Amino acid sequence: MAQFGESGGAAPQAGVLPPATPPPARPRARALGLALGRLSPGPLNAITDVAGVRVGHVTLIDAAGPVRTGVTAVLPHGGNLFREKVVAAVHVINAFGKATGTTQVAELGVIETPVILTNTLSVGAAFEGLVRDALRHNPEIGRGTGSVNPLVAECNDSYLNDLRGLWVRPEHVLAAIEGASAGPVREGVVGAGTGMSCYGWKGGIGTSSRRVDATRGGYTLGVLVLANFGRARDLVIDGVRVGEVVTPPRQRLAAPPPAGSCIVLIATDAPASARQLGRLARRAQTGLARTGSFGEHGSGEYAVAWSTARTVPHWPAGPTLSALELAEDGPVADALFQAVVEATEEAVIDALFTADTLDGRDGHIRHGLPVEEVLALLAESAGRR
Amino acid sequence: MAQFGESGGAAPQAGVLPPATPPPARPRARALGLALGRLSPGPLNAITDVAGVRVGHVTLIDAAGPVRTGVTAVLPHGGNLFREKVVAAVHVINAFGKATGTTQVAELGVIETPVILTNTLSVGAAFEGLVRDALRHNPEIGRGTGSVNPLVAECNDSYLNDLRGLWVRPEHVLAAIEGASAGPVREGVVGAGTGMSCYGWKGGIGTSSRRVDATRGGYTLGVLVLANFGRARDLVIDGVRVGEVVTPPRQRLAAPPPAGSCIVLIATDAPASARQLGRLARRAQTGLARTGSFGEHGSGEYAVAWSTARTVPHWPAGPTLSALELAEDGPVADALFQAVVEATEEAVIDALFTADTLDGRDGHIRHGLPVEEVLALLAESAGRR
Amino acid sequence: MAQFGESGGAAPQAGVLPPATPPPARPRARALGLALGRLSPGPLNAITDVAGVRVGHVTLIDAAGPVRTGVTAVLPHGGNLFREKVVAAVHVINAFGKATGTTQVAELGVIETPVILTNTLSVGAAFEGLVRDALRHNPEIGRGTGSVNPLVAECNDSYLNDLRGLWVRPEHVLAAIEGASAGPVREGVVGAGTGMSCYGWKGGIGTSSRRVDATRGGYTLGVLVLANFGRARDLVIDGVRVGEVVTPPRQRLAAPPPAGSCIVLIATDAPASARQLGRLARRAQTGLARTGSFGEHGSGEYAVAWSTARTVPHWPAGPTLSALELAEDGPVADALFQAVVEATEEAVIDALFTADTLDGRDGHIRHGLPVEEVLALLAESAGRR
Amino acid sequence: MAQFGESGGAAPQAGVLPPATPPPARPRARALGLALGRLSPGPLNAITDVAGVRVGHVTLIDAAGPVRTGVTAVLPHGGNLFREKVVAAVHVINAFGKATGTTQVAELGVIETPVILTNTLSVGAAFEGLVRDALRHNPEIGRGTGSVNPLVAECNDSYLNDLRGLWVRPEHVLAAIEGASAGPVREGVVGAGTGMSCYGWKGGIGTSSRRVDATRGGYTLGVLVLANFGRARDLVIDGVRVGEVVTPPRQRLAAPPPAGSCIVLIATDAPASARQLGRLARRAQTGLARTGSFGEHGSGEYAVAWSTARTVPHWPAGPTLSALELAEDGPVADALFQAVVEATEEAVIDALFTADTLDGRDGHIRHGLPVEEVLALLAESAGRR
Repeated sequence: MAQFGESGGAAPQAGVLPPATPPPARPRARALGLALGRLSPGPLNAITDVAGVRVGHVTLIDAAGPVRTGVTAVLPHGGNLFREKVVAAVHVINAFGKATGTTQVAELGVIETPVILTNTLSVGAAFEGLVRDALRHNPEIGRGTGSVNPLVAECNDSYLNDLRGLWVRPEHVLAAIEGASAGPVREGVVGAGTGMSCYGWKGGIGTSSRRVDATRGGYTLGVLVLANFGRARDLVIDGVRVGEVVTPPRQRLAAPPPAGSCIVLIATDAPASARQLGRLARRAQTGLARTGSFGEHGSGEYAVAWSTARTVPHWPAGPTLSALELAEDGPVADALFQAVVEATEEAVIDALFTADTLDGRDGHIRHGLPVEEVLALLAESAGRR
Repeated sequence: MAQFGESGGAAPQAGVLPPATPPPARPRARALGLALGRLSPGPLNAITDVAGVRVGHVTLIDAAGPVRTGVTAVLPHGGNLFREKVVAAVHVINAFGKATGTTQVAELGVIETPVILTNTLSVGAAFEGLVRDALRHNPEIGRGTGSVNPLVAECNDSYLNDLRGLWVRPEHVLAAIEGASAGPVREGVVGAGTGMSCYGWKGGIGTSSRRVDATRGGYTLGVLVLANFGRARDLVIDGVRVGEVVTPPRQRLAAPPPAGSCIVLIATDAPASARQLGRLARRAQTGLARTGSFGEHGSGEYAVAWSTARTVPHWPAGPTLSALELAEDGPVADALFQAVVEATEEAVIDALFTADTLDGRDGHIRHGLPVEEVLALLAESAGRR
Repeated sequence: MAQFGESGGAAPQAGVLPPATPPPARPRARALGLALGRLSPGPLNAITDVAGVRVGHVTLIDAAGPVRTGVTAVLPHGGNLFREKVVAAVHVINAFGKATGTTQVAELGVIETPVILTNTLSVGAAFEGLVRDALRHNPEIGRGTGSVNPLVAECNDSYLNDLRGLWVRPEHVLAAIEGASAGPVREGVVGAGTGMSCYGWKGGIGTSSRRVDATRGGYTLGVLVLANFGRARDLVIDGVRVGEVVTPPRQRLAAPPPAGSCIVLIATDAPASARQLGRLARRAQTGLARTGSFGEHGSGEYAVAWSTARTVPHWPAGPTLSALELAEDGPVADALFQAVVEATEEAVIDALFTADTLDGRDGHIRHGLPVEEVLALLAESAGRR
Repeated sequence: MAQFGESGGAAPQAGVLPPATPPPARPRARALGLALGRLSPGPLNAITDVAGVRVGHVTLIDAAGPVRTGVTAVLPHGGNLFREKVVAAVHVINAFGKATGTTQVAELGVIETPVILTNTLSVGAAFEGLVRDALRHNPEIGRGTGSVNPLVAECNDSYLNDLRGLWVRPEHVLAAIEGASAGPVREGVVGAGTGMSCYGWKGGIGTSSRRVDATRGGYTLGVLVLANFGRARDLVIDGVRVGEVVTPPRQRLAAPPPAGSCIVLIATDAPASARQLGRLARRAQTGLARTGSFGEHGSGEYAVAWSTARTVPHWPAGPTLSALELAEDGPVADALFQAVVEATEEAVIDALFTADTLDGRDGHIRHGLPVEEVLALLAESAGRR
């Protein structure tokens, strides 16, 4: 474990901490019988149900020390994103946050790097990791073509993590990208979610997906959240005010915990334009609202949405590009909006279900949501509804 | 000088390049008789005419090598910005850019770090430099209070600079902050402006200021630009289409130069609210327009405006804060708008006047604007108007 | 009843329909024991708990005919709003709507007229009514001082109302303003709410308020909604999915009903700046989300927030104005955010509770929410939680 | 002439003023040898060079009275705009203005009515005129399909016009739409431009267009402005500070003239997406800047851009629509940006050139720009450049 002297945290650690194996995730909410919303999830109930999407985690835990953080990389597709960009939009719910790359996404309507999630003070390291990733795959950047727009979003894990240590390095970002894969997504205490808290409990990574039926386009939409927000008392699950009944153990704190934040990533294979993806992203707030939060002052909340339906070439072959877009006045838009809301809600709840208790710096501890107790409460309430 | 192999640029250089002495700046436009606009500048004709504002540069030039870049730090005041924030706003003219920190400024209306200008791919290093600066002065960040919002903007200097080398390191950012001072501001080939190009000529740092007379509040407004935009043919100075007459020497290029960008920083001692500062920032586009640019697709243009009239405490003493704001319906707002336009225009032109010829990577060269020729052309035209 | 020939609806009716007495409102939710949220309401549980705020309704019902519409005027204070403006902000949740005046509110941060709610196609008549109101009180408008910015928002009541008839005239707007008063606010089928629908039931006007305790500033915040949104199946009350159980009677429809919309007006005596009021307004979406809506494509949703803590003079006495603003990092902002969410939720539910069944054009009918049935359902669920 | 008693202007006039024949327009700038910018205009040098675009004016002048106002209708195409919408975007430069319909254009990316320009206080009448136009062509509005989004923008003509009289009625809007035609566009003192002022001179309607050469797509872009902004001293034409030399005759004023405004309409046949059209619209500020304005506080400036390359059906045939969009990284975007800037600049200057002297209410008079004097000044300057 690193020693922190008087200048502790004012400089990044000399060495690069090797990734750790994350602790086992607990069962998912749906596996325990809690099915939120009305639309059906895809086969994985994960953002990776959208074909092409890949997720990679690097978890940094220094067991005897204060490091509880990490990196999660979400790749819109497995190819060269700089050369084959995806149509995208960003919606800022509450910009108490340090996300970078968002203004260019809004201007140009594309994502051209993996999307990196990490802790608040490591956005710079993540930026540099994305730059290095782009440089090694694209020798023309900085030579004949201009630049690359790294997209990074963050939450503050300093309740458990030694945030000041700047433990996340560009190498971790590269490793998260390299390790990204399709298939099931690890949730809870993993990657960027390692040190996060949610509604006073252990939070972290959650994911969910929804299928829209064939009469409404047959599209898939997936969400991945970095859930690190909410006050314990406010937690609502499936409409039940769980937080008024189920309360985390008191802790003696030198200072109140940080306010938290939430990042919502939305992928879909529906051929939505950038403008339309912005409309999808704006529904993320409704999904978060369903879990009980008021949208606290200090909770930086950003939503990023992209479509995998086509790619936008960095070097276009001619002056125009062909595109499909959604016919919004039909039933498709509403179905996708509902999918965003439901998948966002479920992804947050899944982060809570899957994340187990973790202790961190200075004796801080975040308990995993007592799932048995919660399920009993829900059953009691649901049985009578 | 570093060697660049096949993987050249895909990783930052191991060592930290020591800052270089920038080449001498050429005379300023106003010293040569070119006075743009109608309002009078402050005594320094610089952003530092706004009391408290400090500017620091770190210039990175590896004379025999490909490094032509740097860092410029602009400090809204000389105290602890995290604890005593300044009211601020950001306006995005064209978000083909990687500025970071902008969304939180828009949400919360304050700046809480120095403003760092650097090259496009070094935003991550600058973010980390600002974090380290904030951490060392504020031991409570990441312990009892949440986080800090680093504000960084950038332009692409890859025509002259080895952008891929990621030569700017957090240490350079710290040094630029530490070296920041009130008083005259070095312009041209210095700091973040070291490798920049403007209208086909050598560009870089420019600054200017305006005083609003006492009947309109007696305020001072200063602008500092990182000027790296425009096509040679479009250059206009004082209304004269200089670019159609005065042309930079042809260069044999393997690829077209990057499109460029421009960052406009605006400081004032007028007690403007965040909303009002946003209105000031939106006039920066008009100032840039006066120099001839069309606002090219690839020219990322961001304006940041702040007021030094008061500070916003990180730990407020009570539930409310006292503030003054401008009475917009009077003549003050228009005077400040005019000041933004004039100072932005002059700052860009001053960057061109002061920046001397510089060669860079791969035999690229940017010539200094031929000032004598330009002045003769202006005199010819102006003499008859 | 008016006759509609082939050009029916293509021109406004020649005469001005006299206002009708609205049907009696049913009991409010809280009077029936349903208390939503945790903060306490003000004495009236209405937007008029914010001192100075006045509400006036003009209800247009042509009993044997197709007119089911009206006007609701909400006055930030009882004085001359043009000369003494209030600080304000607008947030657009989903701009499928025809609200007017919103862009100037965003730019200048003030409201300078009453806020008018009416039906979608009557925004023009409302604009003209507000202009005439401003002109008669301010002879200088259009003579020595520029203009006035009418603020109007709307929902589509065409399921019950002959929207095409353009029955709302400027005179109705003047009458609603003149009739505005402090004190209890009529809800349900009244004013602009006359013809509105909500979650498949009869909707309309709803209001609620919240007090923030003295340790958090002691402020009052009130909300008034024009509730005309949501699909029957989605209705959630107090977390219970009422809409999955309690279903409106089937109707044979020639065409699907219009998608609806919701307008949320937020008044507070907290000294929030325009930027801060924008943050309050953004929490309205969370309040709406609690009632179950997904934010449908066709549901135009706008939130307007203002502070009565000070007025902004049209003719300022000097170059600056004094203001207070909230210290956001303290607990006040979160308390106000919670107040917005809770009061918005309750205002929507109150619109449903108070609005009784109404029939309209072409045999269409909207049933009042079956309150007894709903309360029984809630009691069953709540009793076990 | 109408009589104005004490309540003068507080109610619209009972009768509908018949349209007047506008006074003859003076020659256009280009016909007098003043060719601004570098791109070539289309054959008409007008917004109607974009195939399908139509313009109609209704001019209201009560020769012996105080009425100097009107309506200009710009139709993206000659068909049913509600059923066949055009892709569009709005950019607000300075929202001291009462434009309506703008938020829905931003949300949905389409225009579905003619675009109406008129005076500030007549936005309500124009809204109602557009509603009536839509209702008569679309019997389903308000019956089976929801609503229609009227798009209206305005400037303040109260220096010459009896703005308080609310002389513009919905019938005038209908007449302007009905009278709209392809072909040459009347400029200057006509339609909505009748009572407008610009840089202290008579302003009004101006138009211009640009062709992009075949290597950059071969597209046409046209601009129409309602020019009512700027202070006399600031006028710049072709880079020459005309306003410092050529000064309008002094007038004894009871009060300062209103601050003015400018509306910029941009049509193109390039297949730009809504996002891309927003980028085009943002370049309008640069065009206005070239004419010398600082963007005054009171100058409401809105830009609306649309593409005629395809239409968006109100009733889509399936869940998706096919679209082209611009490949922005090629040279096309920059060419279109340049076209916006040049055509906007020329349209403003053409409004000044074509608008002749007009007197109005209360002995106010706006002189036409003294074109001979201006041309001499330009020739003197240009001859030496």
